[in-house]
Amino acid sequence: MKKKSIPDIVIGRLPIYLRLLRRMIKEGRQVTSSQELGERLGISAAQIRKDLSQFGEFGKQGTGYNIEFLANQVEEILKVDRVWDVVIVGAGDVGHALANYGGFHQRGFQIKMIFDNDPTKIGNAIGNFTVLDSAVMKGRIQEAGVKVAMIAVRADQAQDVANQLVEAGIQAILNYAPVNLTVPLDVKVQHIDPAVHLQHMTYYLD
Amino acid sequence: MKKKSIPDIVIGRLPIYLRLLRRMIKEGRQVTSSQELGERLGISAAQIRKDLSQFGEFGKQGTGYNIEFLANQVEEILKVDRVWDVVIVGAGDVGHALANYGGFHQRGFQIKMIFDNDPTKIGNAIGNFTVLDSAVMKGRIQEAGVKVAMIAVRADQAQDVANQLVEAGIQAILNYAPVNLTVPLDVKVQHIDPAVHLQHMTYYLD
Repeated sequence: MKKKSIPDIVIGRLPIYLRLLRRMIKEGRQVTSSQELGERLGISAAQIRKDLSQFGEFGKQGTGYNIEFLANQVEEILKVDRVWDVVIVGAGDVGHALANYGGFHQRGFQIKMIFDNDPTKIGNAIGNFTVLDSAVMKGRIQEAGVKVAMIAVRADQAQDVANQLVEAGIQAILNYAPVNLTVPLDVKVQHIDPAVHLQHMTYYLD
Repeated sequence: MKKKSIPDIVIGRLPIYLRLLRRMIKEGRQVTSSQELGERLGISAAQIRKDLSQFGEFGKQGTGYNIEFLANQVEEILKVDRVWDVVIVGAGDVGHALANYGGFHQRGFQIKMIFDNDPTKIGNAIGNFTVLDSAVMKGRIQEAGVKVAMIAVRADQAQDVANQLVEAGIQAILNYAPVNLTVPLDVKVQHIDPAVHLQHMTYYLD
């Protein structure tokens, strides 16, 4: 597997494939085809075959894919055959929702700590967590060796938080603040901003 | 403007440009360049020029873009020079966060109603809203002529909710449930799933 040779857009589709495969296992299914995967995802069967073939031979001609085997392979490729510790910065509504979300663990992630700089929030309980003071964030992340973070602070605080996270050794940031973040090239960032998605769709409306 | 000729991936970048332009206006800026936009977004200047040129001539050679003018033009293209009514289905943590989020209105959206099918949630207040019974959802959406919805229910309920929304006349769905939705071709769907974004990034981690 040569990472450099696989386009990022292909990598971005693998978690979607994985989500569907795990769902099909729940449905009691054992074997599937690129045709069926494509129909359920709105992607062409040829695209799915091409994407998966970048990583090896996962199906046999005519017999399709063994779902459990393929799901395990994709998890290995995405490195979620292990569980990654994650910190949340920002204990507002979004931070709450993320801290309480029960779906992370089975998909390779567990929340370890949640931070905020608001004295009225520090010390509060969110589910099983106590909100920690952002002032101790860098040290706590370094001690624990956490590599993944989610930012759920206001737009005007997000870049400063990102800088601190990078200094603390964070290598992947999921940013919920509605602002683009600038980070070193070796740090990955993904953005979630509902208004961006909504505006993308209104273009097509009458 | 021939819609069919502009790739969806270009449309998907316009909200990102718009977000940055509005931020620059807040910073007191008046003029920018494709170089500066590119640096702040991690996109090449050539890509930005090419994207914007699909819609017309927004800048003058050598003098750059007038930020306010460009922002207004992009808003018009994305049809967020008006305000779209939006309904939320699901009054759990994510529904709460969305209902309370103050940033929608200035970006072209206002929450009108929030629905849930859980008797313990129906009638509860979330911010300025009272949670309505999903049983009346279809009629209420049709009456109000709402075209945009956000789904924040459990994965196993999401497809059924989507079907009801489509019957009610919804044309754009932002889906927070961790499952792919199947809708008619003329209905737009975008998905937000933090685990998908996190898994995309862990591929690149050691």
